[in-house]
Amino acid sequence: MAGAQTDEPSRRPIPLTNSTKSPRTERGERTRRKILDAARAEFGSRGFADTGITEITRRAKVALGTFYTYFDSKEEVFRALVRDMSEQVKVAVAPAFAEERGTLASEGKALAAFLAFVREHQQVYRIIDEAEFVDPEGFRTHYETTAARIGERLEEGSAAGQMTGAADALERDVRAWAVMGMNVFLGLRFGVWGKEDPQAVADIANRLISDGLKR
Amino acid sequence: MAGAQTDEPSRRPIPLTNSTKSPRTERGERTRRKILDAARAEFGSRGFADTGITEITRRAKVALGTFYTYFDSKEEVFRALVRDMSEQVKVAVAPAFAEERGTLASEGKALAAFLAFVREHQQVYRIIDEAEFVDPEGFRTHYETTAARIGERLEEGSAAGQMTGAADALERDVRAWAVMGMNVFLGLRFGVWGKEDPQAVADIANRLISDGLKR
Repeated sequence: MAGAQTDEPSRRPIPLTNSTKSPRTERGERTRRKILDAARAEFGSRGFADTGITEITRRAKVALGTFYTYFDSKEEVFRALVRDMSEQVKVAVAPAFAEERGTLASEGKALAAFLAFVREHQQVYRIIDEAEFVDPEGFRTHYETTAARIGERLEEGSAAGQMTGAADALERDVRAWAVMGMNVFLGLRFGVWGKEDPQAVADIANRLISDGLKR
Repeated sequence: MAGAQTDEPSRRPIPLTNSTKSPRTERGERTRRKILDAARAEFGSRGFADTGITEITRRAKVALGTFYTYFDSKEEVFRALVRDMSEQVKVAVAPAFAEERGTLASEGKALAAFLAFVREHQQVYRIIDEAEFVDPEGFRTHYETTAARIGERLEEGSAAGQMTGAADALERDVRAWAVMGMNVFLGLRFGVWGKEDPQAVADIANRLISDGLKR
């Protein structure tokens, strides 16, 4: 409920799955990565219910025992995957803010980067959307974290005099969730379903949040 | 893919489930309504996989044979329910356009009405979101239809001189999907999860799409 307003979720560290099972070596990290990539391909194409652990280990080319070195169950690897995809989205748009943050231009760059990422990783929608049912807490955390990040950037834009300021916490939250919702649906329509040029789509959306629709 | 641009989905009639099974009498229509309402409550609380036809008929207080008079399967009643919820959302926001269409103020009223509807019918999210997996075509049709409707209103707003015009079909689509995505996520955050005043949320969002964020 009020979580997004009071918890500052973007500052909460994203925990690695079950911490007692976190890999301690680089080789362990690579194996965990292989399992997560295989899980992404399997859950992303068949969905949670129709994917078994053996399909994941077969694709990852690891033994079943190795899987259990890193994850306790199918549910746990799914939850880890949701956090992983959330993190990958963040990393994919980060270069948009390398030169400047808190500008409308960098928001446009971030959207173009997100659309390009979605085009290359279409499973991201299926996995995060299925999390609503399989891992509701991870689903909510993903959006609260993303919205908090957007909200901080808009605050920076306001502090820098580029954007109008939010009068209060409600306005801050509404703006952040509005911008996020816009990006998520543009990703579905133009990244997953459509083949339009990401930059052209991002430019139009950026004009909308910059100037509004009022003549 | 290009469906939303070329098919004009909003003008496609929404078919009633299996037309050979459409009720022909008022009493039949009432029974079908009872089954759909029961299906909404059951699918909305347990989800598709964990709901059986007998749970729906028990809640609706109709015999199993009666169910099959109207629907062939659990999948079919779910698909009918997705179309029904899509229609109910449309009906819930329609009064916002009773006095005027194609104005930014009426878009704000529509969002406030949508948020109030979601507050009262929280299952709408779970059902439409689960349609992505159970009834992907219905899921897509719901959003294409809704976006087409928003796109038409923005065109009217532009024709009436209230809003800036879209340069081409891509701009028309991007704007419509952006506004829809914003509304959907504000509904999730402030209608389903939050308890904030729908009118206050809608006012802020309306300023955003009217004036933009640029100082």
